[in-house]
Amino acid sequence: MIGQDIIDRFRVILGDKGVITDASDIAPWLTDWRGRFHGHAAAILQPDSTEQVARTVALAAKIGVPLVPQGGNTSMVGGATPPPDGSALILSLRRMNRIRSLRAEDNLAICEAGVILANLHDAADQAGRRFPLSLGAKGSATIGGLISTNAGGTQVLRHGTMRALVDGVEAVLPDGGIFDGLDALKKDNRGYDVRQLLIGAEGTLGIITAASLRLVPAIAARAVGWAGVQSPADALALLRHAEAHLGNSVEGFEVIADDGLGHVLSHIPGTRCPIQTRTPWHVLIEVDHDSDRRPGPVERLESALADALEQGIIMDAAIAANEAQAEAFWRIRESLSEAERAQGPALQYDVSVPVARMPAFMTDAAAAAQRAFPGTTASSFGHLGDGNVHFHVRAPVGTTDGPAWIAAQGPAINAFVHDAVVAAGGSISAEHGIGQMKRAELGRLSSPARLTALRAIKAAFDPHGIMNPDKLIPRPDEG
Amino acid sequence: MIGQDIIDRFRVILGDKGVITDASDIAPWLTDWRGRFHGHAAAILQPDSTEQVARTVALAAKIGVPLVPQGGNTSMVGGATPPPDGSALILSLRRMNRIRSLRAEDNLAICEAGVILANLHDAADQAGRRFPLSLGAKGSATIGGLISTNAGGTQVLRHGTMRALVDGVEAVLPDGGIFDGLDALKKDNRGYDVRQLLIGAEGTLGIITAASLRLVPAIAARAVGWAGVQSPADALALLRHAEAHLGNSVEGFEVIADDGLGHVLSHIPGTRCPIQTRTPWHVLIEVDHDSDRRPGPVERLESALADALEQGIIMDAAIAANEAQAEAFWRIRESLSEAERAQGPALQYDVSVPVARMPAFMTDAAAAAQRAFPGTTASSFGHLGDGNVHFHVRAPVGTTDGPAWIAAQGPAINAFVHDAVVAAGGSISAEHGIGQMKRAELGRLSSPARLTALRAIKAAFDPHGIMNPDKLIPRPDEG
Repeated sequence: MIGQDIIDRFRVILGDKGVITDASDIAPWLTDWRGRFHGHAAAILQPDSTEQVARTVALAAKIGVPLVPQGGNTSMVGGATPPPDGSALILSLRRMNRIRSLRAEDNLAICEAGVILANLHDAADQAGRRFPLSLGAKGSATIGGLISTNAGGTQVLRHGTMRALVDGVEAVLPDGGIFDGLDALKKDNRGYDVRQLLIGAEGTLGIITAASLRLVPAIAARAVGWAGVQSPADALALLRHAEAHLGNSVEGFEVIADDGLGHVLSHIPGTRCPIQTRTPWHVLIEVDHDSDRRPGPVERLESALADALEQGIIMDAAIAANEAQAEAFWRIRESLSEAERAQGPALQYDVSVPVARMPAFMTDAAAAAQRAFPGTTASSFGHLGDGNVHFHVRAPVGTTDGPAWIAAQGPAINAFVHDAVVAAGGSISAEHGIGQMKRAELGRLSSPARLTALRAIKAAFDPHGIMNPDKLIPRPDEG
Repeated sequence: MIGQDIIDRFRVILGDKGVITDASDIAPWLTDWRGRFHGHAAAILQPDSTEQVARTVALAAKIGVPLVPQGGNTSMVGGATPPPDGSALILSLRRMNRIRSLRAEDNLAICEAGVILANLHDAADQAGRRFPLSLGAKGSATIGGLISTNAGGTQVLRHGTMRALVDGVEAVLPDGGIFDGLDALKKDNRGYDVRQLLIGAEGTLGIITAASLRLVPAIAARAVGWAGVQSPADALALLRHAEAHLGNSVEGFEVIADDGLGHVLSHIPGTRCPIQTRTPWHVLIEVDHDSDRRPGPVERLESALADALEQGIIMDAAIAANEAQAEAFWRIRESLSEAERAQGPALQYDVSVPVARMPAFMTDAAAAAQRAFPGTTASSFGHLGDGNVHFHVRAPVGTTDGPAWIAAQGPAINAFVHDAVVAAGGSISAEHGIGQMKRAELGRLSSPARLTALRAIKAAFDPHGIMNPDKLIPRPDEG
């Protein structure tokens, strides 16, 4: 455990407000929000400015104290949890929560790392714009964490992941130097794009302190529809059909297996299937217009779905008649994880494969998992258009001790699913990152050239290993 | 100069067809296409496959022979010219010219590094798609070079630079390992994005051997218009107006100063100004539709320009009545560099600043340059919507010895213009890269943190300095 004398040296830089040492204040930040990873830290450092971050990191580098950067602590992979031995301090960016500027005419917001996503949404709304990335944790997740994990969500099809929305980055590198890359230049070919390295680096290469973020026009009108289809292949055919008819106004396209829908209808009060026919697969589709051009999104979506019905791509369809129905359609999608948890224990995977291979993956990998692990049921839902689904393998019916089942079967099922993903040319982490949870699997499943590159970059930026230790980079014994 | 014994070791890997040693065959590749940089090399190595590239690089690493990768040799900054002392060999990717696959339904082409851009355009056209990046050198420039320089062009406003169009990269790293990142995953958070590092690295971190490239729908209909405006600020107002009215169908938006237009009309036969009024500034605008939706692009552009005229944003406007007129409008833009050359000697800068600051930069920097260097005239033209213009400082009227003027005045004017760019928060290289030409200026004008990061990445990937030596990374005495 790091001693009081060392903490006092950080207090000189940060003042009393900038250093938390009370155990009860620290406790909530020592465990990830799903309660899977537990760590210890003698203090949370809370700088208030980029200058303070720079001085904090420079001191940490000088005396060899590792830092674990933390925003909203909403990592899905234990990426913000300190090591259990108390060898590191937490560096919280939450006090750096200023929106430095928001210029509607330039479609640009400059935010500090600790700005909470929902607060940026509100500020953009007030300026007649929007920031088109959202996810369940928006009330806690911070801009710094979202950039450091290259976050996704349900709007990636149209607007891309965080990487596509970041026009500039300010960061403190592991030697305490300030990388000033905030200027939002659309073209800049001055050598290696260091910003791109910091995006998705999970705080292992430096601390993102601020970012220039791209805004888009507010939504003027939207249409939300539901379609029943025979298979994931038909769902993909519907996506291509929708893109051809509706261009890039398709903002949401989520695929749901009928068993997942069934769990929602069973466990989530007040939900009902939007269509009469019970079909093997379902698609939720949203079309947005930024302007009031005619025909509006409802008419255009109606026409596209009618065509799809006529061509036999879909079996049934419905369009939300009003905003309340649109919300009800989306509530089904957003309740899937909760319904799955109510249904029983399951292992969940956040994986991607090339879009064209996704339909086959969804059906074949589920069937193969069920054969390999008798009694389990497997299915998937999510962002088909991004080639990213959340793949679930559920414990056999009647399993009462979920943690025991996961402990016994988890490693074999993990390896099975990840092997299937790699065989399909995919990624074992589509949007959640690596953190602690997937580090060993990344080591096992990466090519030597990829591992060499990851380790070389880490060693080049952080030779003393003080930035978010034990995250992302596989240990020597892990591949 | 590298000896025959060493070249013979590469011949074992590449065969006779893969090694060029005839001086007259080598000569054209020792000088950049503008004739500014001259080098020497005892051989050109021409591998035919990724496997051959890997073995070639592994041998070069083993025996410490630097390699200069080359595609179409169209660098604007001496980025593909070998060192003058003959200490390196040229590695040409031109034999790797296969389009491995092109799937219209997936909007994806997998191309080897040596595919010439115009050939990809043709192949995409035949499949009913297009690859939306083009530039003057398209008949020579190769995919590998375009990725390694993160090329731009006139379609960046809508489709982004090369970075936005590359969905996957295969490369040989400096130790000979093959980085297999070809799978086009829309979401992939497996640690640092090595592909992003290779894009724009100018061959200093490895050899790109193939790439997955994004295709877009073919253009169904286009409208090309010309508007006269009072100032760059009004040109930007017109862009914002057009974006509000025409959404993302604005594919081209080029700004031209009236003096530049004058040079075209004087020196390029058959050109005429598209509008009656002679205005201080001009805008070329293209609107494209991917589908046949109504109203078509001509009607929509007419309506947007009529509105702009009414609001006083523009002074005059014309829309091309047919495809021949559309070509004539574009010919003016594409003849600007040739007309400038005919007009007399000039120094040319490829710079970017944040879009919002570009109007002030265009007028203020030109005025300041003219004051600082009496007798010169300065103006700019180019991609206002990308914050990227080509800024020219012309020698005083009557200057007959251009090279002598450049030798005498070049360094001071370079420093003056680059300082103005940095003061405006911009980049001294918007789309041409650094190469040899801007290396010292990059060193002079970069923050210590940026230089440290560039050098650390280079050293991590290429510890023996065998990849494209003396390019991009400032030397120790250069900042």
